[in-house]
Amino acid sequence: MTPAERLEAQTAFLIEADKLKSVLRASCLIDNSRFENTAEHSWHIMLYALVMAEHAGPDVQIDRVLKMLLLHDLVEIDAGDAPIHADVDRAAQARAEEEAADRLFGLLPADQRDAFRALWDEFEAAATPDAVFAKAIDRVQTPIANLENGGGSWKDFNVTLDQLDTRVGIPIARGAPRVWAWLRPRLSAFFARSAG
Amino acid sequence: MTPAERLEAQTAFLIEADKLKSVLRASCLIDNSRFENTAEHSWHIMLYALVMAEHAGPDVQIDRVLKMLLLHDLVEIDAGDAPIHADVDRAAQARAEEEAADRLFGLLPADQRDAFRALWDEFEAAATPDAVFAKAIDRVQTPIANLENGGGSWKDFNVTLDQLDTRVGIPIARGAPRVWAWLRPRLSAFFARSAG
Repeated sequence: MTPAERLEAQTAFLIEADKLKSVLRASCLIDNSRFENTAEHSWHIMLYALVMAEHAGPDVQIDRVLKMLLLHDLVEIDAGDAPIHADVDRAAQARAEEEAADRLFGLLPADQRDAFRALWDEFEAAATPDAVFAKAIDRVQTPIANLENGGGSWKDFNVTLDQLDTRVGIPIARGAPRVWAWLRPRLSAFFARSAG
Repeated sequence: MTPAERLEAQTAFLIEADKLKSVLRASCLIDNSRFENTAEHSWHIMLYALVMAEHAGPDVQIDRVLKMLLLHDLVEIDAGDAPIHADVDRAAQARAEEEAADRLFGLLPADQRDAFRALWDEFEAAATPDAVFAKAIDRVQTPIANLENGGGSWKDFNVTLDQLDTRVGIPIARGAPRVWAWLRPRLSAFFARSAG
């Protein structure tokens, strides 16, 4: 491929990526004005990762984490967002995301397609230190927003503290234990107040 | 500061950053459904930078560019977006952005405040290879969107091809000449069709 042909393919991918701005998540902005979309969520969790990098394990390379988070939700353009607290067929969702990764990364020149896909596969597998930290950070933003805005998506989905311990506590504690140690008492205080 | 005190400050900064999702730019999404906000724009141009990194000069470190682009528009939370084609008091805007940088980065622990501010200052000064490439990429996304959606913000601001050559052509040609060589004929063809 010539540089111009590569730019043609790269631009087609970048134009398609614009659609991530129209994928809505189940959680709202902190000011409760509207639902958050996946593109701005991706920006925000990259900022979380950069700011909280010191709370990662010693083997984590933050530059790789940032690239993973930049790419990790592109598949939602085709597969949509599957809210963590919703009743979703997770196997069907995983298949839809695989097909989305094939199509979207397939718009790029082959070397970039393979490199981006490898990063996305690594994130999904959640086995390497970088992916474990990226997964932890991906779970931190919404609880902090919900604490700020009065409960947010927890109320919509009737989420309990036990469910949070499993669905966000386990991945956060695995990748960023100091963040979970800080966050957990704030969650229990919030749920205690809500029940009172 | 203890780790918990650092997390307290870091979280205050990250909560404040949520407001960037409510800062609207002068350009629309490619599907013309609504104006783009600055948070999702920041995500999109990071993706542009990663995909187009091969078109940067040899001295460019893409990891530093991504961090610059992640942070570069946070000041718009206080200072708002100053559209490139609008009649804006650029000196007053620059002062407002300096004050915004003081306030926003000042929410962080001092070492992070200084590191983030140094990256933002470097981007603004547009003198290092990383900043020159970041500035180029920051100018590429909107023209490509406008080509896709029928002219977009060019029509709203009665922009001419000469103005584009100055306002986006110079920075793109400086930081990513191959991208400008690819884009320029597409712009002239668009303006020729629009005039016909």
